[in-house]
Amino acid sequence: MKGGRNLYIGLVHYPVYNRRREISATAVTNLDIHDLARCARTFDLPGFFVVTPLESQIQLVQRLVRHWLEGEGAIYNPTRKEALSLIQLSRSIEEAEQRIFHLWKKRPKRMVTGASPSPSAIDYEEARRLLKDQETPYFLLFGTGWGLIQELKDHSDYLLAPIEGKGYNHLSVRTAAAIILDRLLGDRKEKKGEEDGSIGDG
Amino acid sequence: MKGGRNLYIGLVHYPVYNRRREISATAVTNLDIHDLARCARTFDLPGFFVVTPLESQIQLVQRLVRHWLEGEGAIYNPTRKEALSLIQLSRSIEEAEQRIFHLWKKRPKRMVTGASPSPSAIDYEEARRLLKDQETPYFLLFGTGWGLIQELKDHSDYLLAPIEGKGYNHLSVRTAAAIILDRLLGDRKEKKGEEDGSIGDG
Repeated sequence: MKGGRNLYIGLVHYPVYNRRREISATAVTNLDIHDLARCARTFDLPGFFVVTPLESQIQLVQRLVRHWLEGEGAIYNPTRKEALSLIQLSRSIEEAEQRIFHLWKKRPKRMVTGASPSPSAIDYEEARRLLKDQETPYFLLFGTGWGLIQELKDHSDYLLAPIEGKGYNHLSVRTAAAIILDRLLGDRKEKKGEEDGSIGDG
Repeated sequence: MKGGRNLYIGLVHYPVYNRRREISATAVTNLDIHDLARCARTFDLPGFFVVTPLESQIQLVQRLVRHWLEGEGAIYNPTRKEALSLIQLSRSIEEAEQRIFHLWKKRPKRMVTGASPSPSAIDYEEARRLLKDQETPYFLLFGTGWGLIQELKDHSDYLLAPIEGKGYNHLSVRTAAAIILDRLLGDRKEKKGEEDGSIGDG
């Protein structure tokens, strides 16, 4: 697979909804960060932003990353180091977008995900097609807690269709993100002759 | 989506390899169980077997399941209950297969997963096609630790191709299982006219 060299992902801990649909900040989860970093490396993404404004959480992630990049973890498990080196911390979505802009000299297109259907959502085929424009950076956001707030969805370039389960839309953010990345960038070589080949390597 | 009413999954904690490629038993991880149960429910699977011969681990899973099915968890989060009710405990792969046999009066076809490529592996298109035979039960195995032992792979009906990452095959079992289930059963409606429609619901 060619991978998503123009696709950045962000795991958003604020602003998201809590259980009571209030705007809140969630705590960082070690496993989310590991799992998403490993997915990011698998699909050859250029960066994975952990978005949180909370100083305590920032320090926690810094400690985690240091352990695997420079500490004992780096010796114990070099493949984890490879994945976690993709992590960047940012205090807001906008700060992450600023950094992408700085690298690309182009504003990244913001693509948000969620579990609810919406008439304005684009499907995976369309999103795959968009990502083939390698001149444009994309920033794909995953919400923790009870999901990204509505205002964020309203201020995005694209809203991605939810993963349709049979009357059940309660995947963890880890597994949902993995499925979404595979749908966007995964090898489609099994679909012989149906794909133009610019992503799958055949 | 129609879902995989003939596809059972098993999360195998023994026999798997450890770090030194010795045959061993791993500890059960709460999050693996939650994530895979939620995936199983999303794809409408009939059952999710947690395979472990260790009495301590069996009790741990029983306690976990009870909490979400009958305890406070059931009130706090009914959707989790719905997912975790798919869990069955079995002391061995064979015991799980016996139970599937008992229900179907037919031996389930065993399909194993792994991170290494193999010339005998089948691709996802072929596996999707196999699963459409709704008269035959399938048992899809995921290994914890450093993966399912070779002997298991040698004694299976099918070995599924690994998820091809760009020179990186170190996904967590949670995210790998999610991607694999989506490839096998996920809605393919985005591929208009390319699928026969027996799995995707359009």
